[in-house]
Order: sequence, then structure tokens, then C-alpha cells
Amino acid sequence: MSKEKMVTAITSMEDDFAQWYTDIVKKADLIDYSSVRGCMILRPYGYAIWELIQKQLDERFKATGHENVYMPMFIPESLLQKEKDHVEGFAPEVAWVTHGGEEKLTDRLCVRPTSETLFCEHYSNIVHSYRDLPKLYNQWCSVVRWEKTTRPFLRSLEFLWQEGHTVHATAEEAQEETIAQLNEYADFCEKVLSMPVIKGKKTDKEKFAGAKSTYTIESLMHDGKALQSGTSHNFGDGFAKAFDIQYTDKNNKLQYVHETSWGVSTRLIGGLIMVHSDNNGLVLPPKVAPIQVIIVPVMQKKEGVLEKASEIMKELSKVCRVRLDDSDKSPGWKFSEYEMKGVPIRVELGPRDIENNQAVLARRDTGEKVTVKLSDIADEVLSLLDNIQVSLLEKATKHRNSKTSEAKNMEEFKNVLKTNQGFIKAMWCGNEECENKIKEDTGASSRCMPFEQEHISDVCVCCGKPAEKMVVWGKAY
Amino acid sequence: MSKEKMVTAITSMEDDFAQWYTDIVKKADLIDYSSVRGCMILRPYGYAIWELIQKQLDERFKATGHENVYMPMFIPESLLQKEKDHVEGFAPEVAWVTHGGEEKLTDRLCVRPTSETLFCEHYSNIVHSYRDLPKLYNQWCSVVRWEKTTRPFLRSLEFLWQEGHTVHATAEEAQEETIAQLNEYADFCEKVLSMPVIKGKKTDKEKFAGAKSTYTIESLMHDGKALQSGTSHNFGDGFAKAFDIQYTDKNNKLQYVHETSWGVSTRLIGGLIMVHSDNNGLVLPPKVAPIQVIIVPVMQKKEGVLEKASEIMKELSKVCRVRLDDSDKSPGWKFSEYEMKGVPIRVELGPRDIENNQAVLARRDTGEKVTVKLSDIADEVLSLLDNIQVSLLEKATKHRNSKTSEAKNMEEFKNVLKTNQGFIKAMWCGNEECENKIKEDTGASSRCMPFEQEHISDVCVCCGKPAEKMVVWGKAY
Repeated sequence: MSKEKMVTAITSMEDDFAQWYTDIVKKADLIDYSSVRGCMILRPYGYAIWELIQKQLDERFKATGHENVYMPMFIPESLLQKEKDHVEGFAPEVAWVTHGGEEKLTDRLCVRPTSETLFCEHYSNIVHSYRDLPKLYNQWCSVVRWEKTTRPFLRSLEFLWQEGHTVHATAEEAQEETIAQLNEYADFCEKVLSMPVIKGKKTDKEKFAGAKSTYTIESLMHDGKALQSGTSHNFGDGFAKAFDIQYTDKNNKLQYVHETSWGVSTRLIGGLIMVHSDNNGLVLPPKVAPIQVIIVPVMQKKEGVLEKASEIMKELSKVCRVRLDDSDKSPGWKFSEYEMKGVPIRVELGPRDIENNQAVLARRDTGEKVTVKLSDIADEVLSLLDNIQVSLLEKATKHRNSKTSEAKNMEEFKNVLKTNQGFIKAMWCGNEECENKIKEDTGASSRCMPFEQEHISDVCVCCGKPAEKMVVWGKAY
Repeated sequence: MSKEKMVTAITSMEDDFAQWYTDIVKKADLIDYSSVRGCMILRPYGYAIWELIQKQLDERFKATGHENVYMPMFIPESLLQKEKDHVEGFAPEVAWVTHGGEEKLTDRLCVRPTSETLFCEHYSNIVHSYRDLPKLYNQWCSVVRWEKTTRPFLRSLEFLWQEGHTVHATAEEAQEETIAQLNEYADFCEKVLSMPVIKGKKTDKEKFAGAKSTYTIESLMHDGKALQSGTSHNFGDGFAKAFDIQYTDKNNKLQYVHETSWGVSTRLIGGLIMVHSDNNGLVLPPKVAPIQVIIVPVMQKKEGVLEKASEIMKELSKVCRVRLDDSDKSPGWKFSEYEMKGVPIRVELGPRDIENNQAVLARRDTGEKVTVKLSDIADEVLSLLDNIQVSLLEKATKHRNSKTSEAKNMEEFKNVLKTNQGFIKAMWCGNEECENKIKEDTGASSRCMPFEQEHISDVCVCCGKPAEKMVVWGKAY
């Protein structure tokens, strides 16, 4: 075996998008497969991205008064069945625990696919008076959904997520919370993940099992497919009635609470990959890059090179997440390796650079190189990181816009899918039959009814009857 | 219903220790019960303690080169069976998933009781050369053990923990890691939890299923019972052989890796309670107190009181976790409430205090009050928090020492258990029969063979044959 394992090239996304994606998740060391069907192992580099997402989201949740809790991972079958729509939606895809040790259980336990029922049961115990409201709880955990076909990050039997569950005194407050959390997700996606999203409401067909309304953020991948990236649900008082969650209001009258839930998951990492990465591997926005800067010494055996590199490393470590690779692998190998891992900035430093009191900064996203003075390096790196963060969002937005079309009738609709697959804006009469027909005929589903409505035409793209809403359609993951 | 729910008194620990414990976990709002037998809900206040433990431990792990990963929560039965001792130890107490949706599984999945088998499988995939070693992985997750009787934090069907799993090139390195992590736990317990522990090795009878050696930290509760608070295992190459984890060494020869694992759990919170708390409720060391300082305004409707309280709150929030309770409940109610919750320092501030530019600081642990100048309040609070952190450790150490006895023969052993139940230091011949006999006759088990050995006598406390080791014995949770 050669000492230096080559950084092998990956399939290009133009040749085979699915294989390109799989190559990246494996070769950037994000995940490994396990012997459990559909369950992935999050390796240190992949988990570190999740930790950065988690930390920054958690800070946002706490800043707006949310508190973390932990609920059991099991739900007794009898509890799951309390809300009719909810159990119908989830029962077909849950894992059932039937035995504890040698003992057969009388009430089977499902491994949580989501925890509305557990939160409801708890709220019914702890909410008594208007003084107890609102309760703004969140939990970080893993959930299980028994999917038939799975793909790392996008759809797996088990995945990590956060699920917020809140109860409020009034319908208005619950609606405010639902929208506030959707806005939080959208802002997080844009500012932290450099990922533009469309905010909107799901149609009844696409809403969450048991919800009154579901809101979503939808993003567009390189291949023109949509990814539902986060959802926020308003349950109204449906669950409250099923679980008897009542409080005494200021006039001493019993009232039902109004409830919301909202969640994002490791799926966001799949989104990151398919929005930013390229044929050299992963591309990461600086704010979620476990390594923001990699220092690669050139001719590192020459006197003074490693010393200088360490000095720079020390200085940069005060302002960003930086590593120095002083292993005995060649600079070329290192360049490819950290490109594969999506490290936003590479610092190249050789004897001649040191002589000239300079270093080269190479951007992962564009490949551009700039030479900077060593005395300015911390400032230059920080401003470049900011620049990358913003220009990734701009690039992704431009891509998404170029892949967004309008269609006034089904012929246009189908043509667009053939020529420029992406988001399609088209009017809809509000009838589920048309929604189903479009899905059957084209494979595109309604992604959402955007908050920012446009007037594409007067009539439904499918049936020609008067239109109620503009819907964004697309083939989806 | 009265507007102000009384803070109800709790059972005194002298009357009923178990009830006192249960009262605290419930009335300090740490947990709630769920409809899943043996599974508890960690409420915001309880979970916040866990988050503080987690954050500070995680920093320590990362500072020593450990990386976080996430493994699946399921283990196929066939994988669990690969290491004989391990499966024998765990199979009787695991939860089995037998159905996914409607489909019956051919290979049952157990919900992880611990993840050695999954880590081993992964390591066998990713470790090839000496260059890949060591791998120092850790995971934060929940695990399930099908216990018959459960108690919040101490023993539950599901609990939160961290499990470190490392592989090394040599037996020496694995042993070093095992001890280093045990020392890390001991240091954490003393410095962060103010909880003194005895470090030592478990006897063969008490070691982990599949381990070559198990090391432990043992702490002593108010009631004289021992709590195993953390363990660190050296597996030698046993698992490596069962899972075929081999690497090519520098001489190009195949070698088995040497493996360790180590873990602490939410059980530490149970330990915290039973080491520090009193008949007024929870007592928390400042480093894991979600609220370190509570400001209680007195006569808060008088002009200027709330303004001044907010000012102080703002100042203190720069240096500690502080809250101001300006609700319309009485100061007396607030005093009791935050005593119950174990907030280390209460700041009392009334009109007369403000006139005199002073405030009263009351310590939760001793009840002592001091009057301080408002201009010095941040410094005074910080130094008092440090003081409390240290004096809790001193008090707990004194208590533990007073409950530690020596026994030269079984008569002394039994007498001690009657008069001053706690740790008993006694010599042991090394024979498991004696260990079993002591357990049967007295209920006390061998807690560990402390690193700091003492010479109590020449012979085994049980059989009178020559002694090999001093063992610390005790009744345990």
C-alpha cells in the first residue's frame, strides 16, 4: 500500500447527480453506513456540522424564550392513538417494541416518530391556569420513521432533529408562534446556511398529520429538485381536545390551549450539500464549517516554514476555527483533501512567501487566490469568511431564480419540467383533484402557497377554473 | 383556588429518605412521570442541569482530542451476539423492536443499551493502518435498559448519557486512556459537582460485561448508600478479536487494536441531589446551577425598587446566570421556591437597602446572610459563588469521611452497617466466594479496590485467609 492514499475523484454531478451526492457524503467523511438498514453513522466531521447547526439554532430558540426538555423515546400504542389523524399518518411507519427483556409487552411501544402525543400528555399534567401559559418547549433528539427507501441525511430510518412544542392561551398567539418559528428557520437558512428558501403554507393534502395548518420553507437543489427544509405547524385546539389540555382563564372559565410544533433535522446537511457543493467535493458556508481555515505549508521541511505556519495558526485560532496540516503528505494531496471537505479558506505558505512576509489565501467556493500581508492575515481571513458566507447565498439565490419558471397551462408546465426543472409558479383553483392530477401527470407536487403571492394568470393551471392561489410546484426529495 | 399556590414542605430525609428524594425531584421541577413505565420527562429545570454537565464535560473531552459521533440507536440481534460475555450481560435487559410498520423483521433490533458493538463494527471498517490510530470517539445519546424497578435519575428504562469508545495501537495506550478518563470524571465530580469520589478498580464479579478491567468512581450519599457515578473500561483486544478490528503496524504486520469505553449519565444528577440537598429542597453547586443568583425585591411596589433590582440584574448578568423574580407573589413564597430549586445565592433588596446602597446576599447552602455594598455586588457574588462551590465539596467530604469505617472481621462489618452505614474499608482475599458471602450476609457489595490502598489487617475480613487487597464495601443504589 502506498503511504499516501490518493484523494480519489468523485463522480461529476452532470454525469450522475445521485452518485455525486453519495460520493460526497462518503468521501468528505460525513457518514458511514452501518449494518442497520437505513441508519447512518454520523462521523466526526459530519457530526461537527450538526453541532454547529444545533448550537446556533439553540441560541436562537433560547433567545426567544424557549426551554429545552427531554421526553421518553417510547410512546405507548394507546397514547399514539388518541389523536385520530395523527395516528393514521404515523402508525404505518413506526418501529414497534414488543418485548422488554424476556417479557412480552401488553401495550406495544412505538419508537417516537415525533413527540406531539408525549408533549400533550405532559402539558395536560402541568398546565392548569392562564398563569402557566405559554409553555415554549423544545427537544433535541433522534426519531425513527420506517422508510422503505433511504438516503443519507435526506431520508433515513433514524435521524437527528429538534422538535419545538408550544401551548398558548389563544389561537392568535399560537398562530404568531407558528409563523415566528418559520421565520426563524428561514433567517437561519439564509444567514447561517447561505441557503435561500421560499416561505409558504402547505396545501391541505401536504400538511402534517393532525395539523390545522402547516407552513414550510422550501429550498432548491442543484439538480432542480425541491427540498422541504423545515416545517412549522399550527394544531389549533385539536390535540388539546384529544388530550384534554385545559386551563382556567382570567374569568375563571375553562379553555382549551392552542398548540404548535416545528422542526428541522439533519436533512439540512443534505440541503447544504446539494445547494453549495461542486465536482471537487463539499462546499461549506463558514458559519457551519468545522474547519474554516486550513493552513498548508509548502516545502515544509525548509527551515522556518513550520515555525511560521504555527505562528499564523496561533494567531488565526483567536478569530476562527483553524487547523494546520503539517503531516508528511504532499501539498497537492492536502489541497484536494480539504477541497473535498469544503474548508472555506486554504492558506498556502512557503519559503518565498515567508521571505516576502505574505501568504496566499485560496477560496474554496470560487478557487480565487489572493496574496495578503502576514501582518494583516487575521483581518483578511475574517473579511474573506464574511465574503464567502454572503456570496454563497447570492450564488444559490441566482441559481434558484434561474431555475424558477412560470406556467399558465399544463403544456407550459410540462415543457418547463423538461427544459429547466426547478420551481414552477402556477395558479391553482384550490381543488385537491387538480393537485393530484398535476402530481400524477408530471411528478411535481405542490411545495407551498408562498406568503409572497404573485398573479401569474386568472385561472387554475390544471382545470382552467378561477384560481385561488399561486402555488410553487416542483419535484421533491 | 388561591392565587398563590403554597410552596409545600417536603418529607424530611430523616423521616423517609426515599420519599424526601422523590419530593425533591418533583417539587424542584426536575422531572415529571410519563405514561411509559420507568421513563421520566426531564423538565426544563432538570434538563438545564444536564446541559451544564454536558457542556463542561464535552469541553474537557474535546480538549483532550476526543471527537463526537452519532451511531444508530438500533443494534441487530446478530451484531449484539458477536461478543459472548457482552451479549450475556445485556440481552436479558434490552427492548426489542420486532416490527417496522406492518413488516415483521427477520433480524430483531435491540434498542442500544450501550454501543460497543456498533463502534466495533464501525472501527473494523475505518481502521486499517497504524496511521489511523488512535480513534477517540464519544457520543451523547440515550440508552435503554429494561429494569424491573426504577427511580428517577438513579435507574430508569431510558437515560441520557455519554459513551466514549476509543481504539489504540497498544495495550499500554488503552490502559492510559482508561485511567485518564476515570481521572477526568473524578476531577469533574470534585471541581464541578463538588462531589468527592473514591477511584478504584472493580472486582471481576462487578466488572462490565465483556471488559478486561472496569474502573469506577464511587460516591457516598446522605443516607450512607454508595452510588457508582461513572465507569471506565479497558477491553484489551477481546472485542477487536470478536469484531476483527486489525491494523497494519509500522513493520507491516497485522495487529489487533486495544479498546476502551467510559460513560457517565443523568445518574450524576441523582448523585448531586443525595450529596448536597437538605430538608428545604435542592442544593446545587454553582457550576451546574441553571440559576446561580435569584434577585427577590422586597416591597417591590415602592418607588424605585424594581428599577434598582433591574439595574442589579443587568450588572450581574454579565458575570453569572441571574434572574429577577418580579412576579406578584410574596417575598416569602419566593424565598421558599428558590430554596426548593437550590439557587445558590438569593439577593434581597428593599427600599431601606436601596437607601443605604446595599443588598443582602443569602447563601442557599448554609442560610448565612451578608450585607454588601451595591457598588461591590458583582465581585461579592462571584467570590461567594466560588466559596459555595468549594465549601460544598468540603462538607460532602467531611460527611463521607465520617461515614467511612474500617472492619477487621465480619462482626465489626455488621456492627458498622447497623451503627454508621456508609463505606466500609476491609481486606479481601481476592476470592469471589467471600465477596458473594459478604453480599448475602450484609447486603453490602464490593464498590471497588481503591487506587489508594491502605493496610487494615493481614487477613480477609470474611475467610481469614491472607488478604490481597483492601476493598471499599457498601450498600449501593
